[in-house]
Amino acid sequence: MRQVAVVGAGMTRFGKHQDRSMKDLAREAVENALRAAGIEKETIEAAAVGNAVAGLITGQECIRGQVVLREMGIGGIPVINTENACASSSTAFHLAWLYVASGMYDTVLAVGMEKLFHPDKKKTFEAIGSAIDLEIADEFARQMSGEQAAGAGESRSVFMDYYANLARAHMARYGTTREQFARIAAKNHTNGSLNPHAQFQTPRTMEDILAAPLIAEPLTRMMCSPIGDGAAAVVITTAEKARQLTSKPVYVRASIVASSQQHAEGAPGIVTNAAQKAYKMAGISPQEVQVVEVHDATAPAELIVYEELGLCSPGEGGKMIDDGVTTLGGRVPVNPSGGLLAKGHPVGATGVAQISEIFWQLRGEAGKRQVAGAKVGLTENGGGVLGNENAVASVHIFTL
Amino acid sequence: MRQVAVVGAGMTRFGKHQDRSMKDLAREAVENALRAAGIEKETIEAAAVGNAVAGLITGQECIRGQVVLREMGIGGIPVINTENACASSSTAFHLAWLYVASGMYDTVLAVGMEKLFHPDKKKTFEAIGSAIDLEIADEFARQMSGEQAAGAGESRSVFMDYYANLARAHMARYGTTREQFARIAAKNHTNGSLNPHAQFQTPRTMEDILAAPLIAEPLTRMMCSPIGDGAAAVVITTAEKARQLTSKPVYVRASIVASSQQHAEGAPGIVTNAAQKAYKMAGISPQEVQVVEVHDATAPAELIVYEELGLCSPGEGGKMIDDGVTTLGGRVPVNPSGGLLAKGHPVGATGVAQISEIFWQLRGEAGKRQVAGAKVGLTENGGGVLGNENAVASVHIFTL
Repeated sequence: MRQVAVVGAGMTRFGKHQDRSMKDLAREAVENALRAAGIEKETIEAAAVGNAVAGLITGQECIRGQVVLREMGIGGIPVINTENACASSSTAFHLAWLYVASGMYDTVLAVGMEKLFHPDKKKTFEAIGSAIDLEIADEFARQMSGEQAAGAGESRSVFMDYYANLARAHMARYGTTREQFARIAAKNHTNGSLNPHAQFQTPRTMEDILAAPLIAEPLTRMMCSPIGDGAAAVVITTAEKARQLTSKPVYVRASIVASSQQHAEGAPGIVTNAAQKAYKMAGISPQEVQVVEVHDATAPAELIVYEELGLCSPGEGGKMIDDGVTTLGGRVPVNPSGGLLAKGHPVGATGVAQISEIFWQLRGEAGKRQVAGAKVGLTENGGGVLGNENAVASVHIFTL
Repeated sequence: MRQVAVVGAGMTRFGKHQDRSMKDLAREAVENALRAAGIEKETIEAAAVGNAVAGLITGQECIRGQVVLREMGIGGIPVINTENACASSSTAFHLAWLYVASGMYDTVLAVGMEKLFHPDKKKTFEAIGSAIDLEIADEFARQMSGEQAAGAGESRSVFMDYYANLARAHMARYGTTREQFARIAAKNHTNGSLNPHAQFQTPRTMEDILAAPLIAEPLTRMMCSPIGDGAAAVVITTAEKARQLTSKPVYVRASIVASSQQHAEGAPGIVTNAAQKAYKMAGISPQEVQVVEVHDATAPAELIVYEELGLCSPGEGGKMIDDGVTTLGGRVPVNPSGGLLAKGHPVGATGVAQISEIFWQLRGEAGKRQVAGAKVGLTENGGGVLGNENAVASVHIFTL
């Protein structure tokens, strides 16, 4: 397969964009990505568009990518609409990569987009419930009221129990502490304060995180990612064309999408499997990775993913955050963008936003949150009920 | 890119499966495809699953492919969920093909599936409206009653006016007649009577078609495709592995997905563009094609597609059906399966079902509807509002 490189990225700020449509958000992201790549929209030969729940939010299921792109004058090309829950747009990126790697097309756009906020809150809740997703449980608690209480409360309990159970199991097995989870959330909120695209830009201490309302032991509200709207886009092309466009192409060294399966107790989970395939594909070891964006749906998820990605040994996630290894300035900063916890998590936009962050980091364009000298980056994006049979994981590895 | 071949196909009968779930329909199709290919499910390395409107029908948007496949013990692999309106599963096939052609995976499953019938008819209408689709307009008329009349009536009028306008424009420009459209519908219903998978299996004459209730001049009800449920699946692999599995691999010679764009009056439309790319990719001319499945959402659509695919010259579609060229026994039979008009059109299942038909035809396994000696086949699958900016067309070419 051909070598592929990212040559441009763009995203909106994540957050509550009550007055903006998904089209409008996508336009901002795509136009910024094209501008960053220094190419005209006519150069784009195909597009892959990730979105999770617009069907339920808008009542309009079909060809959402075409509808969004033609607004900005992009048409006549193959548009692949794809959905993989919270991993929708890393899946879109994977398909865009496949188009270029295969030799089918040279220059392809990958877009992630989502509007979760709706004037009718019930629609937001239904859509989120539909995402079989967990991380937004915080907002269920935050926004629950009156008529939504029953349904939302039930979802919340399923969601939070799940993550809380995972966290408690890790605590029981390895002695991991609430303070360690809080330290992860504090790191991400503090990173978010350095990122103009982040939904939350207020630095937080471990004490702030622990003082937030308890959702389900050990999770406090600030250990959970919020509801948000947003879009992100990247332009990819062949290595050869990339070198004509920029002195700093960001090469895609591995692109893996996996789904989970029934497996024996104690067998490696979906993230571990996807990561191992990605390392093998890239010919890169976990120890060589210098900057990482992971799917921190909740703070404990990030800690567990350290281990699943092989950034540390099983059970040593707590020590890793205590030692500051994953903090900005540490050996391998994780979620310098603020992650899902602070940058936000508009479901279908998250995957491409993670890739955008690694693009900027490897090129030295990440501003105040820059990881100095990073040349190897990794993204991990999850979807569905992780640990369950209906889950998705996507791992990408990039080098300058 | 590597050469790819289809080695197995399976589908349910299309129709009203009120008592069966989408999972159940998909299972039948996938198990039949695996059996036909002579492989175990463990051999499948990835899957692409096309579905258009299950989100609105079920209220559950996400990872529908994983949910369906794990029921039959297929997990741990990448599952790509894709949607492109009525072309959803030809898009899924395109992605499955891309996986094998690129070298990423060897043996991949493509699935199309849809449940349109719902005990609450309102849900069916909403979902169909969401597909921005036209062909099911007949059923709007057929099923309209009481509370649905207003909304459904409005959609019906938009849908049917559109197709009726296309038909009338062709009549005005080229002298095409109602009888020619009726002849196409009669051919497809008669073909459907030979196909055990078809929703409608009653042979019809031109007179029957013309005597059906008028929907919008010149369309009668029997010139419009029905609402239906169903699933279809195919297994594809590398040419090398295919030759180990079967003495009759069906090679994929071209796989094109396109979207429409704003274009100048009189410029070639989306189907023409997609077909020209496909012929070029395959190195095959329209004159070499021996059996075709097209997207006959309505009878006039099939006639117009004859011209867009270059099976005849512009304006000669009417003559082509009059001369029996596209009838079973003619030079290039079109829709031997019965097409959307008689085989049925469960939106997201249609693309892979068309490909299944060509697979069976080229292998001589099409029973009473067999096109004798066909070695070159083509499928054309459309989606969205054809002729409009928000449309999709997919063209595939196959050889024995």
